[in-house]
Amino acid sequence: MKTQVCIIGAGPAGLLLGHMLRAEGIECVVLERQTPDYVLGRIRAGVLEQITVSLMERLGLDQRLKAEGLPHDGFNLADGERLIHIDIAGLTGKHVVVYGQTELTRDLMDAREERGLEVIYEAKDAALFDIESDAPYVTYQKDGAEHRIDARIIVGCDGFHGPSRKAIPNTVGKEFERAYPFGWLGILADVPPCNHELIYANHERGFALASMRSETRSRYYVDVPLIEKIEDWSDDRIWDELAIRLGPDAAAHITRGPSIEKSIAPLRSYVFAPMRHGSLMLCGDSAHIVPPTGAKGLNLAASDVHYAADALIAFFKRNNADAIPAYSDKALARVWKSERFSWSLTKLLHRFPEDGPFERAMQIAELDYIASSKAAQTSIAENYVGLPV
Amino acid sequence: MKTQVCIIGAGPAGLLLGHMLRAEGIECVVLERQTPDYVLGRIRAGVLEQITVSLMERLGLDQRLKAEGLPHDGFNLADGERLIHIDIAGLTGKHVVVYGQTELTRDLMDAREERGLEVIYEAKDAALFDIESDAPYVTYQKDGAEHRIDARIIVGCDGFHGPSRKAIPNTVGKEFERAYPFGWLGILADVPPCNHELIYANHERGFALASMRSETRSRYYVDVPLIEKIEDWSDDRIWDELAIRLGPDAAAHITRGPSIEKSIAPLRSYVFAPMRHGSLMLCGDSAHIVPPTGAKGLNLAASDVHYAADALIAFFKRNNADAIPAYSDKALARVWKSERFSWSLTKLLHRFPEDGPFERAMQIAELDYIASSKAAQTSIAENYVGLPV
Repeated sequence: MKTQVCIIGAGPAGLLLGHMLRAEGIECVVLERQTPDYVLGRIRAGVLEQITVSLMERLGLDQRLKAEGLPHDGFNLADGERLIHIDIAGLTGKHVVVYGQTELTRDLMDAREERGLEVIYEAKDAALFDIESDAPYVTYQKDGAEHRIDARIIVGCDGFHGPSRKAIPNTVGKEFERAYPFGWLGILADVPPCNHELIYANHERGFALASMRSETRSRYYVDVPLIEKIEDWSDDRIWDELAIRLGPDAAAHITRGPSIEKSIAPLRSYVFAPMRHGSLMLCGDSAHIVPPTGAKGLNLAASDVHYAADALIAFFKRNNADAIPAYSDKALARVWKSERFSWSLTKLLHRFPEDGPFERAMQIAELDYIASSKAAQTSIAENYVGLPV
Repeated sequence: MKTQVCIIGAGPAGLLLGHMLRAEGIECVVLERQTPDYVLGRIRAGVLEQITVSLMERLGLDQRLKAEGLPHDGFNLADGERLIHIDIAGLTGKHVVVYGQTELTRDLMDAREERGLEVIYEAKDAALFDIESDAPYVTYQKDGAEHRIDARIIVGCDGFHGPSRKAIPNTVGKEFERAYPFGWLGILADVPPCNHELIYANHERGFALASMRSETRSRYYVDVPLIEKIEDWSDDRIWDELAIRLGPDAAAHITRGPSIEKSIAPLRSYVFAPMRHGSLMLCGDSAHIVPPTGAKGLNLAASDVHYAADALIAFFKRNNADAIPAYSDKALARVWKSERFSWSLTKLLHRFPEDGPFERAMQIAELDYIASSKAAQTSIAENYVGLPV
């Protein structure tokens, strides 16, 4: 098969990009290792920045997002006692929208046929070839046979573990990485949220996050050492821990219920640079990971897609040969800022084994300072809603 | 001898407080271990916040400060290439004043006689007794004899190594501390500054600061590992290093000259809490140390003096028994915020041995973000000019 753009990975980044290209009449094929149901089963982020919402608008695929998404004008930091309200709408004139990644992915999947976006699911063992040439190709296995797609450009939207980034020679790319000594234990339950906005808490006992997917579905997290086993965390134990860490006001409004999903996810900061080599471009988690604090992962993938779509449209529709090489620097400038925000919010809100009483005092002092300073609140708010693209 | 307030230490904190009390007719005596010349010989900070300037104004001792001090409306961060200007006047409506600690101390010393402030120099081996009672006293050695001063309140302005803080029982006080794995190598020279404002640089090779005491006297720093010896740093080597770290634009304007002072000072963050126990109050370095990044040390001593003078005036003139106990919390609220700012600016601008490429990238990303964000610049500026008292 021959196409203009071969996209590897049909998560939200790959599907968003595919639809953007199809809307401009650019040929593309999306390859996905898993089944559609598997992709939809992945529970991920649920807070959309304006950039992500505006891509869905531009595609005309925002009907359900508009109807069911919950616009949030603020969020809260907490120190175990009080809530520090960050009035993002008042401080920035913008807002975020709570809408699960699963729902966004479903909207993009549902529009495939109508928009003529070809996605090949269960395409196993994808491998990239000749990416340094103008005629790269991808091979994959499906239904017992090897297939080949020839393209002008390959875009890796295949996540941290996918083959795309690994196709770039070691001598070209540089990795920047930080692991964290804890994970987020998450619980999803069909109960109303304890607060109409998110609460990020730094309690003496550790981090907690009260989040939501809808007005009837809540998502909560506590941080735990990476050696913890999920079997040791009964629903009751998680609800008890949340009630302590979120503080008495929030605790009074927690509705408990059986978990419908429960897992421990490690936290990582990771950037691979450059994000383009030869005829290969990387978008989203294939090039970078942020810790989930601040909900930047999906939104950063969306801003990559924004830059990548611009570059591909300029290249294929306006014959602009510089657009593809320019992609990496444009995308990375925003990636680094989001990495910085996610890292700094993670450091503000979690306890680190190497930290002593002074570092703990610095966290409390920073929360006190944020509570007292409009400038500090504005800085957090403008990062939270998303820096300009 | 009997007095109302015995102040230990005749550095800027002790002298400021002594003058404030004398202006209200409160009896006090200041004890100083060293000679006046020794005190004046200590080269320290040179950037005054509004709180410090306003105390000198309130005392009517600001004639020379007004005439010779250099008002600065901004300062610069640098990343080895560009300057990031922080327009503190534009962002906060306030400014700082460059005026050496030595000059401020001289002004306070010169006014002793006229204002009736008694300072006993070369008072050795000061020791505090009965601080948990209403009748504490201090003993010291001078001219071969032991002397004793009975007071109602003792105020420790005797720096990090003085006896005051050590008089508070271990069971009462808590220490918060962080040491840094580098020191500041400083050089003072009678040459014009390379820039009319300060430059704080984070270069690949390390930190550098271009500062000044006047239009003809410059103060520069580079950070060095603590194991470095000052003998290994010739003036030329220091000027060469500064020229690299401050970046090409600043380097072109550096005027070299022989050092008139040269030393390596360690960096430390330290807070002792509470800052009051019984009849003893602590002000300035006796209770807390900040790393010099951001020039908070002297200014934090001044804000302590502001709160301490208020408390002592309320106690002695208005019989307010709650004023002395309330001092610690009031002073500490501002101390913690200044500690946070000094610590965060230190972390932004220095290389740490434990930091890898990711942490270095975070520093660059933070400088980039600051360069692009008015909110981030405002947050830095409001801390730099001094948070509200």
